[in-house]
Amino acid sequence: MSWEENVRKVVPYTPGEQPKIKNIIKLNTNENPYPPAPAVAAALKEMDVDDFRKYPDPTCSRLVDAIADFYKVDKSKVFVGVGSDDVLAMAFLTFFNSDKPVLFPDITYSFYDVWAKLFGIPFEQLPLKDDFTIEPSDYYRENGGIVIANPNAPTGIEMDANALEEIIKRNSDVVVIVDEAYVDFGGKSVLPLIDKYDNLLVVQTFSKSRSMAGMRIGYAFGCEKLIKYLSDVKFSFNSYTMNKPSLELGALAIEDEEYFNETRDKIIATRERVKPLLKELGFEFADSKTNFIFAKHSEKSGKEIFTALRERGIIVRRWDAPRISEYLRISIGTDEEMDKLIAALKEILER
Amino acid sequence: MSWEENVRKVVPYTPGEQPKIKNIIKLNTNENPYPPAPAVAAALKEMDVDDFRKYPDPTCSRLVDAIADFYKVDKSKVFVGVGSDDVLAMAFLTFFNSDKPVLFPDITYSFYDVWAKLFGIPFEQLPLKDDFTIEPSDYYRENGGIVIANPNAPTGIEMDANALEEIIKRNSDVVVIVDEAYVDFGGKSVLPLIDKYDNLLVVQTFSKSRSMAGMRIGYAFGCEKLIKYLSDVKFSFNSYTMNKPSLELGALAIEDEEYFNETRDKIIATRERVKPLLKELGFEFADSKTNFIFAKHSEKSGKEIFTALRERGIIVRRWDAPRISEYLRISIGTDEEMDKLIAALKEILER
Repeated sequence: MSWEENVRKVVPYTPGEQPKIKNIIKLNTNENPYPPAPAVAAALKEMDVDDFRKYPDPTCSRLVDAIADFYKVDKSKVFVGVGSDDVLAMAFLTFFNSDKPVLFPDITYSFYDVWAKLFGIPFEQLPLKDDFTIEPSDYYRENGGIVIANPNAPTGIEMDANALEEIIKRNSDVVVIVDEAYVDFGGKSVLPLIDKYDNLLVVQTFSKSRSMAGMRIGYAFGCEKLIKYLSDVKFSFNSYTMNKPSLELGALAIEDEEYFNETRDKIIATRERVKPLLKELGFEFADSKTNFIFAKHSEKSGKEIFTALRERGIIVRRWDAPRISEYLRISIGTDEEMDKLIAALKEILER
Repeated sequence: MSWEENVRKVVPYTPGEQPKIKNIIKLNTNENPYPPAPAVAAALKEMDVDDFRKYPDPTCSRLVDAIADFYKVDKSKVFVGVGSDDVLAMAFLTFFNSDKPVLFPDITYSFYDVWAKLFGIPFEQLPLKDDFTIEPSDYYRENGGIVIANPNAPTGIEMDANALEEIIKRNSDVVVIVDEAYVDFGGKSVLPLIDKYDNLLVVQTFSKSRSMAGMRIGYAFGCEKLIKYLSDVKFSFNSYTMNKPSLELGALAIEDEEYFNETRDKIIATRERVKPLLKELGFEFADSKTNFIFAKHSEKSGKEIFTALRERGIIVRRWDAPRISEYLRISIGTDEEMDKLIAALKEILER
């Protein structure tokens, strides 16, 4: 017998490319085009390196308190992790231990099925409707848990708030995770519902609206009991997941509400300006409430456009997957970057 | 039915205290008393905050390459994670999927049984001999995997290199993890054996000998195939576990071999100087090859001494656990800190 027989064999998630080439326009991983809040740069220069020799605060109180203050919730209802991926992985491990399948859409964040397979969780992917919206009644059935990204990725479509609440309400016997990675760009958060439904976990991230993808900070809200269960699992996995720079710089980033509003509004304005320009070029897409647009062209294939953009130094994201292979997911960059994108697309489509 | 029925319920690991009080002498979590390598402070001031808006390199190549260079191994044999706890958690999840029990000593790093319980891995804790050494032949039997901390914690005792190799050799059908968190303080690493035994995973950390506990960096070595399996599971859990400061500052810390040798030698010298002083005061302990001493007093109870030290602002570690409740684990601090410890102990023991 070989040790290989007892290895957990998995097909890992493939993250979007992080090319090391300079001067590309990177619109493939929904990063924020603006730098983090100014206090982050200042604090980095002041940070006491001698302090790195000691373990960080395992309770992450500096960061948890800042998040609790910003969202006006009690700190006992806040959980933090190494990006929302870490938070979601811990949540799958903690809450999805039923024999019944966990439910999520067929087109959504492509890590959900990877976590389910990793932990041996049964799951079913429920098809979105042809217009890529979710049919709420699909989720009115026995299940082992539910995960809904809202707004959904990579479609960018937001679900009706009442319909989402109805799903949470009708599934009080399982945990419902609402993944709000993109909610700050015009979506409506279900955060106020955590006091009404003890089965609701709301997950958010610093990677998009707070310009901190490189620092790996995610967080979640839920009733105190739910967060306690999640923390127990986290403390059974790794006591100290957040390093000192994450805790301090993350707290500073969230404390600057003015800068947050300003950069978020700029991204929304750019997105709204770009929408009609893309339509003029023959692109079709649902209304996006995120910092990306998920679009297909009426004539030219997604793959062709993807390749032609890449040749021009512009990287967007595309999946060779059923139903979405003609689509491109285009992150919203600065106005200048988007103008270059539009110019490149004009060139590509007019040939 | 309630969602609570499908929650994974665990009793988490309890980390050593991280008190927020100033001016204490902290000898409870085996942190390094010296700051990280000078290049770390310099790089922190130069770090480009704008870069934080983008995701880090998921392959962690900057850090992996630096570790591979330092240890002169191929980078395909290196794995990195958020502290050695993250590396060990991933390794348990990846390699220990047998119905047979994973074996480790009854007195060892107290996270091993927590991970086993978290993932539902059967395990057996094999009693150390009365002198707290490992009986190698205990591990010559059918099992689902083996974990040995060497030097062991909290005993500080190093196992004979040949005996350890024999365990690895006789268990070629399972993965043997050798946790070398403390190896730099005078122990002998089994790293050279990874080319001889494809079932060996060697785990080390930046938290002790490299003064970077606050940055959360751990790493592991194994044959290419072993590391590939581990990476696949890691990429099924979280694509980006290491943030940008960890990758850059970790690489710089490992590149300064001179500073590493100098601070490590200082800690070893302090430890050797303190040993006879503790013996004079009536403490008994095995020969430590780590940055701590695990000692009990011939007359006074461990709990009493622990409490009396704490009243004097000196924190050491103690477990209310079978066989070791009379012991104190005392981290090696600076010479000045250890002199204050000895003075406090004199006061406590002479009353």
